[in-house]
Amino acid sequence: MSDSRPPPPPPHPFSRAIPDGDDRERLVCGECGFVLYDNPKIVVGSVTRWDDKILMCRRAIDPRRGFWTLPAGYLELNESTRAGAEREAWEEARAKIAIESLLAIYDIPRISQVQLIYRARLVDETLSAGPESLEVGLFGWDEIPWDDVAFPSVHWALGHEKEVQATGDLTPRSNPMPADPSTPPADPAAPQGL
Amino acid sequence: MSDSRPPPPPPHPFSRAIPDGDDRERLVCGECGFVLYDNPKIVVGSVTRWDDKILMCRRAIDPRRGFWTLPAGYLELNESTRAGAEREAWEEARAKIAIESLLAIYDIPRISQVQLIYRARLVDETLSAGPESLEVGLFGWDEIPWDDVAFPSVHWALGHEKEVQATGDLTPRSNPMPADPSTPPADPAAPQGL
Repeated sequence: MSDSRPPPPPPHPFSRAIPDGDDRERLVCGECGFVLYDNPKIVVGSVTRWDDKILMCRRAIDPRRGFWTLPAGYLELNESTRAGAEREAWEEARAKIAIESLLAIYDIPRISQVQLIYRARLVDETLSAGPESLEVGLFGWDEIPWDDVAFPSVHWALGHEKEVQATGDLTPRSNPMPADPSTPPADPAAPQGL
Repeated sequence: MSDSRPPPPPPHPFSRAIPDGDDRERLVCGECGFVLYDNPKIVVGSVTRWDDKILMCRRAIDPRRGFWTLPAGYLELNESTRAGAEREAWEEARAKIAIESLLAIYDIPRISQVQLIYRARLVDETLSAGPESLEVGLFGWDEIPWDDVAFPSVHWALGHEKEVQATGDLTPRSNPMPADPSTPPADPAAPQGL
């Protein structure tokens, strides 16, 4: 937390109510009746390769500032998912990428996110940190800073990329599940799990 | 349009502005500074089979009231995409379905939608029209009301289901593209195109 942050805005006059014809609570403005239909957001990103190295970015923003991630972010209005993944690679790493195929769809209902992660390759080796990155780099598998990876889904995507390379099976992956439902899932942040 | 519709609400005091640290315009409340981050919405749905028949619903709501569609709708907060597709089949057709695999992802940036359509099978044959459907039914391929299909993406999904059945290739499909980029795409609403 920094002293330079603006104070939070005063509360908007939204309250929870079930609009006519609906069956669940929405945020409704108490002044004018505007209904805020809040739905899950789509995150688009990529596992981008240059030869056998993978593009990663060290986050300059919270959450997980200082940790390493894949170029990814929220899909914008009127944008296709492939165009969004290309834009995020440009914004975060000044990387020009060519999308190849869908690597995985990850459902993260706890935070109302659906992540669409593409496989891509770098068009040229030129890279630099965008405003949301402290630094960017290309990592061989054994060079990836496993102990400083920002999110479980980054581990999942890297593991799935490895699997695609090993098997040639391009079927998109989804959230990893434990092989035996009676045992708890492995810690997705544990690099040895990959 | 019906006389029973409520009048539109008075305008909310939102205006377009670029928030601090952002790079594009958002809707910002002129009274309290609340920023409305509006992003594309996720539609989840299914091509659901019972033997060789496919579940379809005749829409009781606009747009395209009276036309036939697949059970599909907006993903809700804290919901996985599979759970959302199951919920929509229940809400629109009182159908209990078992999701099998992802059939297709359709990008529709013009209306800021990403559609995730699953393959599914009916758990039992019990069906009835939910509040958003005039009627529901199971259709063999030649019985589908092709001239009264609600949306191009319904045609796409039905065509992709047919392709999966013919080839056994479960790789998820995306928006159909013309084979030769120099020729215009076929009209997706043309049933002979399937």
